[in-house]
Amino acid sequence: MGDSVEVTAEKIRRIEIQGARNVAIAAIKAFQTLAEQTKASNKKDLLKELREAQGLFASARDTEPLMRNAMRYIINQTQTAPTEQVTALRIVVNETADGFLKDLSASSMRAAEVGAKRIGDGSVVFTHCHSSTVTKMLAKAKADGVDFRVVCTETRPAFQGRITAKELVGLGIDTTFIVDSAARTFMSEVDVAFVGADAITSEGNVVNKIGTGGIAVIASEARVPFYVVSELLKFNPETLHGGCEKIEQRNPAEVWPEAPQGLKVKNPAFDVTPNRYIHGIICEEGIIPPQMVLETMRKRYPWVFL
Amino acid sequence: MGDSVEVTAEKIRRIEIQGARNVAIAAIKAFQTLAEQTKASNKKDLLKELREAQGLFASARDTEPLMRNAMRYIINQTQTAPTEQVTALRIVVNETADGFLKDLSASSMRAAEVGAKRIGDGSVVFTHCHSSTVTKMLAKAKADGVDFRVVCTETRPAFQGRITAKELVGLGIDTTFIVDSAARTFMSEVDVAFVGADAITSEGNVVNKIGTGGIAVIASEARVPFYVVSELLKFNPETLHGGCEKIEQRNPAEVWPEAPQGLKVKNPAFDVTPNRYIHGIICEEGIIPPQMVLETMRKRYPWVFL
Amino acid sequence: MGDSVEVTAEKIRRIEIQGARNVAIAAIKAFQTLAEQTKASNKKDLLKELREAQGLFASARDTEPLMRNAMRYIINQTQTAPTEQVTALRIVVNETADGFLKDLSASSMRAAEVGAKRIGDGSVVFTHCHSSTVTKMLAKAKADGVDFRVVCTETRPAFQGRITAKELVGLGIDTTFIVDSAARTFMSEVDVAFVGADAITSEGNVVNKIGTGGIAVIASEARVPFYVVSELLKFNPETLHGGCEKIEQRNPAEVWPEAPQGLKVKNPAFDVTPNRYIHGIICEEGIIPPQMVLETMRKRYPWVFL
Amino acid sequence: MGDSVEVTAEKIRRIEIQGARNVAIAAIKAFQTLAEQTKASNKKDLLKELREAQGLFASARDTEPLMRNAMRYIINQTQTAPTEQVTALRIVVNETADGFLKDLSASSMRAAEVGAKRIGDGSVVFTHCHSSTVTKMLAKAKADGVDFRVVCTETRPAFQGRITAKELVGLGIDTTFIVDSAARTFMSEVDVAFVGADAITSEGNVVNKIGTGGIAVIASEARVPFYVVSELLKFNPETLHGGCEKIEQRNPAEVWPEAPQGLKVKNPAFDVTPNRYIHGIICEEGIIPPQMVLETMRKRYPWVFL
Amino acid sequence: MGDSVEVTAEKIRRIEIQGARNVAIAAIKAFQTLAEQTKASNKKDLLKELREAQGLFASARDTEPLMRNAMRYIINQTQTAPTEQVTALRIVVNETADGFLKDLSASSMRAAEVGAKRIGDGSVVFTHCHSSTVTKMLAKAKADGVDFRVVCTETRPAFQGRITAKELVGLGIDTTFIVDSAARTFMSEVDVAFVGADAITSEGNVVNKIGTGGIAVIASEARVPFYVVSELLKFNPETLHGGCEKIEQRNPAEVWPEAPQGLKVKNPAFDVTPNRYIHGIICEEGIIPPQMVLETMRKRYPWVFL
Amino acid sequence: MGDSVEVTAEKIRRIEIQGARNVAIAAIKAFQTLAEQTKASNKKDLLKELREAQGLFASARDTEPLMRNAMRYIINQTQTAPTEQVTALRIVVNETADGFLKDLSASSMRAAEVGAKRIGDGSVVFTHCHSSTVTKMLAKAKADGVDFRVVCTETRPAFQGRITAKELVGLGIDTTFIVDSAARTFMSEVDVAFVGADAITSEGNVVNKIGTGGIAVIASEARVPFYVVSELLKFNPETLHGGCEKIEQRNPAEVWPEAPQGLKVKNPAFDVTPNRYIHGIICEEGIIPPQMVLETMRKRYPWVFL
Repeated sequence: MGDSVEVTAEKIRRIEIQGARNVAIAAIKAFQTLAEQTKASNKKDLLKELREAQGLFASARDTEPLMRNAMRYIINQTQTAPTEQVTALRIVVNETADGFLKDLSASSMRAAEVGAKRIGDGSVVFTHCHSSTVTKMLAKAKADGVDFRVVCTETRPAFQGRITAKELVGLGIDTTFIVDSAARTFMSEVDVAFVGADAITSEGNVVNKIGTGGIAVIASEARVPFYVVSELLKFNPETLHGGCEKIEQRNPAEVWPEAPQGLKVKNPAFDVTPNRYIHGIICEEGIIPPQMVLETMRKRYPWVFL
Repeated sequence: MGDSVEVTAEKIRRIEIQGARNVAIAAIKAFQTLAEQTKASNKKDLLKELREAQGLFASARDTEPLMRNAMRYIINQTQTAPTEQVTALRIVVNETADGFLKDLSASSMRAAEVGAKRIGDGSVVFTHCHSSTVTKMLAKAKADGVDFRVVCTETRPAFQGRITAKELVGLGIDTTFIVDSAARTFMSEVDVAFVGADAITSEGNVVNKIGTGGIAVIASEARVPFYVVSELLKFNPETLHGGCEKIEQRNPAEVWPEAPQGLKVKNPAFDVTPNRYIHGIICEEGIIPPQMVLETMRKRYPWVFL
Repeated sequence: MGDSVEVTAEKIRRIEIQGARNVAIAAIKAFQTLAEQTKASNKKDLLKELREAQGLFASARDTEPLMRNAMRYIINQTQTAPTEQVTALRIVVNETADGFLKDLSASSMRAAEVGAKRIGDGSVVFTHCHSSTVTKMLAKAKADGVDFRVVCTETRPAFQGRITAKELVGLGIDTTFIVDSAARTFMSEVDVAFVGADAITSEGNVVNKIGTGGIAVIASEARVPFYVVSELLKFNPETLHGGCEKIEQRNPAEVWPEAPQGLKVKNPAFDVTPNRYIHGIICEEGIIPPQMVLETMRKRYPWVFL
Repeated sequence: MGDSVEVTAEKIRRIEIQGARNVAIAAIKAFQTLAEQTKASNKKDLLKELREAQGLFASARDTEPLMRNAMRYIINQTQTAPTEQVTALRIVVNETADGFLKDLSASSMRAAEVGAKRIGDGSVVFTHCHSSTVTKMLAKAKADGVDFRVVCTETRPAFQGRITAKELVGLGIDTTFIVDSAARTFMSEVDVAFVGADAITSEGNVVNKIGTGGIAVIASEARVPFYVVSELLKFNPETLHGGCEKIEQRNPAEVWPEAPQGLKVKNPAFDVTPNRYIHGIICEEGIIPPQMVLETMRKRYPWVFL
Repeated sequence: MGDSVEVTAEKIRRIEIQGARNVAIAAIKAFQTLAEQTKASNKKDLLKELREAQGLFASARDTEPLMRNAMRYIINQTQTAPTEQVTALRIVVNETADGFLKDLSASSMRAAEVGAKRIGDGSVVFTHCHSSTVTKMLAKAKADGVDFRVVCTETRPAFQGRITAKELVGLGIDTTFIVDSAARTFMSEVDVAFVGADAITSEGNVVNKIGTGGIAVIASEARVPFYVVSELLKFNPETLHGGCEKIEQRNPAEVWPEAPQGLKVKNPAFDVTPNRYIHGIICEEGIIPPQMVLETMRKRYPWVFL
Repeated sequence: MGDSVEVTAEKIRRIEIQGARNVAIAAIKAFQTLAEQTKASNKKDLLKELREAQGLFASARDTEPLMRNAMRYIINQTQTAPTEQVTALRIVVNETADGFLKDLSASSMRAAEVGAKRIGDGSVVFTHCHSSTVTKMLAKAKADGVDFRVVCTETRPAFQGRITAKELVGLGIDTTFIVDSAARTFMSEVDVAFVGADAITSEGNVVNKIGTGGIAVIASEARVPFYVVSELLKFNPETLHGGCEKIEQRNPAEVWPEAPQGLKVKNPAFDVTPNRYIHGIICEEGIIPPQMVLETMRKRYPWVFL
C-alpha cells in the first residue's frame, strides 16, 4: 500500500518526489490509499476527503498541472459514478486511478513513436534536461535503426541532463554533453530539437525546465525546428481563465550552497517558451500546432474544463 | 624575479594561470626575466631568444590575443631600439614591458569610467562571467552614487560568476545570482548588459566566455543594449588575414568529473558574438561601434599590424 | 422609446454615435423601436423590414462587425421563432435584443476578469485609445489590490486616450499620459500591453484604432506580451469568405481643420494587427490564441455563420 | 475508358502525368476502370484489388496527398457501402469517384472566388510556378473588373511559370515575367503573394514547388502577405502521426542535361514553407490560419483520418 | 546687433527659440554680440567670458550638440589665434562665427543635393517632423523634375509636420498628411524614408524628434530604406566618453493643457534610433554608414574632440 | 595590339565582353591601344582623347565600377605625370595600365588566400553565379588539403553557375549543383556562403548577380555567415555622392526566347545586398566589415575620390 495523502504531500513539498510524472503518480497512489482506508460512510464524505486531499496536493507545489488534472479526473469520475455505495466507490477510485496511469503511459509511448519518425538518418538532435518521453522517443529511433547523434545539456542547477546522458549512453546512442550555455555554439550543427514540458497554457506556450525558452530562441535563430514532446495532460486549464502558470522557486542552496551573505540567489525551476518558437507539440494526438492544444484538449479531455 | 619562460609557458598550458590579463602579465614578466638573465651577446641573439619565447607562449594556449599583442609590442620596441648593446636592450625590454602593463591598466580604468556613465539611476545591469574591467566599472558607478542592481550568472563550468558575485557583494552592490540558463527569464527586467572580451576580430565580432553569444541574442530579443567592455588590445590581428580565432577546448572533467564512459563531454571555453548584437565596444577610446575596432586599432596601435 | 431606424442610421453615418459597442447598442435599440412600431401584418413583412434596416445600418459605417452580428442574431432568432404572429414576434425581437445586450455586457465583464489576472504586482501596463473592456479590466485589478501603473497614449486625432486617462485617474490608478509616437520610448519599461478591438478576422488579425499595429510591432521588438481584450462578437464572418475588413476613412478636418489647400489629409480610423504580434485574445472564453477565434466562434456563436 | 491501374501508375512514375490535381484525376479514373473491368466476385476481393492499386499508386510518386486522399475516400466509401454486390459496388466506385472530382473542382472554384476578393484595385500580385486554382482566382478578379498586375517567376527547372504567364496573358492580365532569383528585387513593389500547394502538414506547413519557401521568407522581409490557395484535400494525414512529407527528387537531367561527370546535380521538386510565413490558407472553407487546417479537416473530411 | 548672451540663453531656455539650427544660430550671434561689447582687456578675460557664455547656453537646453559644437569651434579658434589683442580677437570671433554659419549652410545644401539623388521617379517618400535639410532635399528633387510624392506626419505635440506640409504644398509637391500613428498603415506604399537629426552619438545612433525610432522600426519591418539627412556637426562628442544624450523633457501642457489633476503627462522631445535601423547618414560627406560618423568627424572636424 | 576604343566599347555594349574583370581589362587594353596610336601632339590633346574614351566606355554599360576606376586611375596618373611629352606619356599610360592589371590580379589572389582560411575541415560552402576570385579561393583551400564540399546554383538566366561547377569539378572538389530557387532547401546544411561582387556602395551594400540578395536573406535566416569576396576596386565612388548603382537591364530573350506577345519579361542583371546581411568583405586588405569599405578605400585608393 502506498503512502498516505499527508506523507505524500509532504514528500512533494520537500521535493523528495519530483518530475511532473512522478509527482502525479504519487498523488494518484495516495488517492488510492485514501480510498482504501477511508472511514467515510457515504459518497458525500468520501468526496469531501478526496477534495481535501486535492487541496493539500495543490498547495504542495506550483507548476504541476499533470497532478492536478489527475485529481480532477478521479474526483470527477467518482462524483459521476452511478452509485452511492462507498464500497463501490472505492473500486471506482482505484480503477479510475489505474486507468489514468495506463492512459498516461500510453500517451507518452504514442508521443515517443510519433516523434521518433522526425529523426532522420545522419541527423543531430538537441535536448535539454531530462524527459522520460524524449528518452523513449530517442530509444525508439535507435531501435528502428536510425543513425543519429544527440547533443544534451547538463541542466543546472540539478544536473538532470546527466540522467539523460547516462540513459542515452546506455542505449548506445552517440551523445555529446555540454554546459547549458554552450547551446548556441552547438546549435549550428543541430538538425532538430526536442524538449519535454511541465505545463502547457491555453495560448500554446510551454512551461519547462529553466533554460528551455533561451534554447528555443537560439534554435529559431539557427532555423532549427523546435518540438515539445509531451502528454497533453500537462495542459493547465486555469491559464484559460487568466491564471498565470506560477513558476516554482526552488532552494537557492541548489545553485550555490555557500553563497556569500547578502547575495540574492534566485532559483526558478522553469521558464516559459512562447508558441511562436514551437514548431509543434508531439503528443498522443500526433503532431499539432501549439495553438491547437486548447481545442484538442476540449475534445479529448473535456472533464479537464469542468 | 619572475618565473622563467619555460616555467611560465607550462603554467599557462596547464591553465594554472588563466584570464586574458593574467596570462598576458605572466608572459610579459617572463620576458623581463629572460632579458635579465639572457646570455645573449648581441641584439640578434637576444631577439632570437625573445622570438623563441614568443613561439612557446603562442603554442601554450589558444584565444590569447592580449598576450600575443604584448609580445609583439615588446619585440617590436626592442628591434627598433636605436642600440645594439644587450645591456641597453635589457632596459628597453624591461621598460617596454612595464609601460605596456601600465597602459593596459590605464585602458581598463578608462573603459570602466566611460561605461559607468551608461548605468542610470534605478537601472538593472546584467553581466556574465568575471571581467575585472566590468567590476571596476560597476564599482565606479557605485562610488558615483548611482542606485542600480546587478544580475549575474554563475558561469559554468568554472563558476567565475561566483568571483563576480563576491566582488559585487563586497562593494555593497545589490546583486542577484542565477544559473546561466535563467538569463532569458531575468532579461525582461534588465536595462543594460555588459560583458568583457577575450578576443575581438577584424569584423568586430567578440570572443568571450562560453554563453556570451546566447546572452547577446536574448538581450537583442528583449531590446536590451548589449555592450562589450574591454581594452582594445584584445584585438586579434590574425583575423584580418583570415585566421579564425581558435576556441580553446578545455578539460571535459571540468564539466563532469565522473562522466560515464563513452559519453563525449565537450568543453569549449569561449564563443563568438556577432557584431550585429553588440551596441558598442566600451574601451580606452570611449564607446565605438564594433565595426570601428579595426580602424581604431590601426590608429592607436599600428605596431599590432607589423 | 428609442430613435427610429432612419434617425439612428443617420446618426451613425454622421459619427454622432461612435465606438463599436455604442453603435451596436443604437442599432439594437432601433430594431426594438422598429418592432414596436411596425405596421407589418405578417412574419414575412416584419422580416423584410428588419432586413431593410439591416441594410441601412450596414451601409452607414464600415468596420462595425459587432453591430452586424447583433442584427444577424436578432433577425435569425426572429426568423426561426416558432410563431407567425407579429405580436409574438415583437416580443421575440425585443427580448432577443435585450438578451444580446446582456450577454455582450457579461462577455465584456468576463474578459475584464480574466485579463485582470494577467496584471502582476509592480507591473507597468500599456494601453492605446479607449476600450471600456480594458478600463473594466484595469478597474478589476485595482479593486483586487494589485499594485500597478498604466502608460496610455492620447490617441490622435480624436484624443480618445484622454477619456481613458480620466477614467483611470478617477479609479486612483497611477497613470502616465503620452503622445502616440512616444510609445517606443516608454515601451522599454512596460511589462504587458492590452488593447481593445473593433473587428477580428478569420485569420485572427485584429482591426483596432489607428496606431495599434505599430504599437504591436514595437511591443514585439521589446518582448512585451501584447493582448487584445474583446468580446468575440467583434469577429467579422465576411472575412472568412475573402472580404477585407474595410477601414473607415474619417473626416480630414479631424486631423487638421485648417489644412492648406492642395494637401491630401488622410484619416483612416483603424489599422490591422497581424496575428503573429498578438499573444492572446482575452475574451468571454478566456485567453485563446488569435488563430483559434474562428473555431471558437463556430462553437459559441454558430448563427454568425448563417 | 481510361488507362488501367498499371499503365497509369507507370505514367505517374515516369512523370508523364504531373501536377497534384492531374495525378489525382488519373488515379481516380484508373480506379473507375478497375471497377469496370474487375473480375472480382465479391466485396472482399474488389476491396483487395482497390487496395493493391492504392499501394501501386502510393509507391509511384512521393508528395501526392491529394491522390492518396482520393483513394482513401473511394475505398472507404466502397467498404462502408451497404451492399455486398460487386455490381452495385462498381456503381459506388464510379459515382464516388465522380463525386470526388466534382467536389474537388467546386473546392478549387470556391477558393478562387474567396481569394479574388483579396486582390485590390491597383495592386501588384506575386505568384510562383503554376497553380490552376491561382489562375482561376486571378481570372475571377479580372472578370470582376479589378485593375491589378501580376509578377510571376519562370520556375526552374521545368519552367511551369511559362504556363502561368501564357494563361495570364491570354486572360488579358498585365504580367511581368522574371527568373526565380529576381523575386527579392521585385518583391518591394508587390502587395500580396499567392501560391498553390502540393501538400499541407498537420502543423500547417505547406509543401509546394521548389522555391516557395524562399519566396515566403522574402515576402515576410518586405511585409507582403503571403497566402496559400489550395483545396484542403492536399492535407497529408500521415504527417499527424510523425510522417515527414517526403520530397520527390526528380531527374537531374531536368536541371542540366549535359552536366559534367562527377558533378552531383540535385533536383528536389518541392520545399516546405513553415506556417509562420503563411498569412492564411485560402480554401473551400474560406480563409483560415494555417494552424487551423488540421481541425478543419477533422470536421469536413473525417474519413481522411480513418 | 543681436541679443545678449543672457537674453538669448533665456529665450533658449523658454523654448522661444527652437530647432537645432535656430538655437545654434542664436548662440553664435550672441557670441558675436559678446565679442563686440566685451570690456575684456586681454585674451584670457575674453576667453573667460566666452566660456561663461558657453556654460550658460549648455545649461539652457539638453540635446543641442550643434550649438555646443559651434561654441567649441569659436572658442577653440579664438584661443589658438596667433594674437593676444582683444581688438583682433573680436574680429576672430566674428569671422569664425560667420564662417561656421556659412559652412553649416553649405553642409545642409550638400546633404540635400546628395539625398535628392536617392528619390526615384514615381517613388513615395516618407518624412516625420520638420527638417529644413529634408525640405531642401525634396525641393531639389522637385526642381530636378523628379516625379514623386510625400507622406508626412503631423508630429505631435507641437505639430511641426504642419510646417513641413505647408512648405511641400508650397513647392507643388503632392503631399499626404497623416497622424503619427498612421505611419505603419502608410508605410506599405512607401519607397524610402528620410528624417533629420538633433544629435548623433559615437555608436552612430540618432537622436531626433519623438516618434522617429518607432518609424524606423516600422520602416525596417516593411523593408523601406530609412535615411537620416543631417549636417555632421549634430554629432555629440560627449557620447564617445560615455555621456548619454540627455533627452529634453518639455512642458506637459503642450500635450494636454487641461490634463486632470493627478495625471502624469510626460513630454520627451526626442527619442533614439539605433544604428541598425539606419541605412545611411546623408551629410556633407555624402552617404555614409552610421557606424562611420565618428571616424568621419575625426577627420573633418578634429577640433570637436579637443 | 588590342582593339580600338570604339570597337571595344561596342563589344562591351553588345555584351560580347562581360564580367566586371573582363570588361575592365578590355577597356584598359583599349586605353593602351589609344596611347600607342594617338596622333595627339600634346598632353592636353592626349588627355582629351582619354576622357572621350572614358565617356564612351562609361555609357556602354551600367554597373561597371571596376572599369570606371581603372580609367580614373590611368587618366589621373597621366595627368599628374611630370612630363608634357606625348612620347613619355604613352609610356605612362602603358605602364600604368599594366600596373593596374597586375595589382588587380594580386588583390584577387590575396582575397582568395584570406578567404580560403575561413573554410574549415568538413564544412559545406555555398556559392552563387561565377566569381573567379571565389574559384581561386576554393582552389586554394583544396590545395591546402582542406576537406570541404560546395553547393552552387545554376544562376539563371545565363547559367554562369555551370562555369563554376565545371571549374570546381575540374579541381576535384565535391560539388552539388542546384537550381537557384533550391537555395533555401540546401542552406540548412551549409556552414558558410561566399559570393563575388560587381559593385560596392559607400554604405557597404553589395551589387552582385541577380539572386544574391535573396540568398543573403536566406543565409541570415539559417545563421549561415555570408561573405563577399572581391577586390575593393569594385567600389563605386559615385554612390557616396548619392548616385544609385544603376542596375543593368539585359535582353529579355535571355530569359525566354519565345515569350508570348504582350508579356513583359524583365531581366535585371544584378541586385543589391544590404550591409546588415554581410558578415565581412574579404578583399586585398583582409576581412573587413562592409561599413569599413569607404574608409579603407580612402586610405588605399585615394585617387578614386578625385
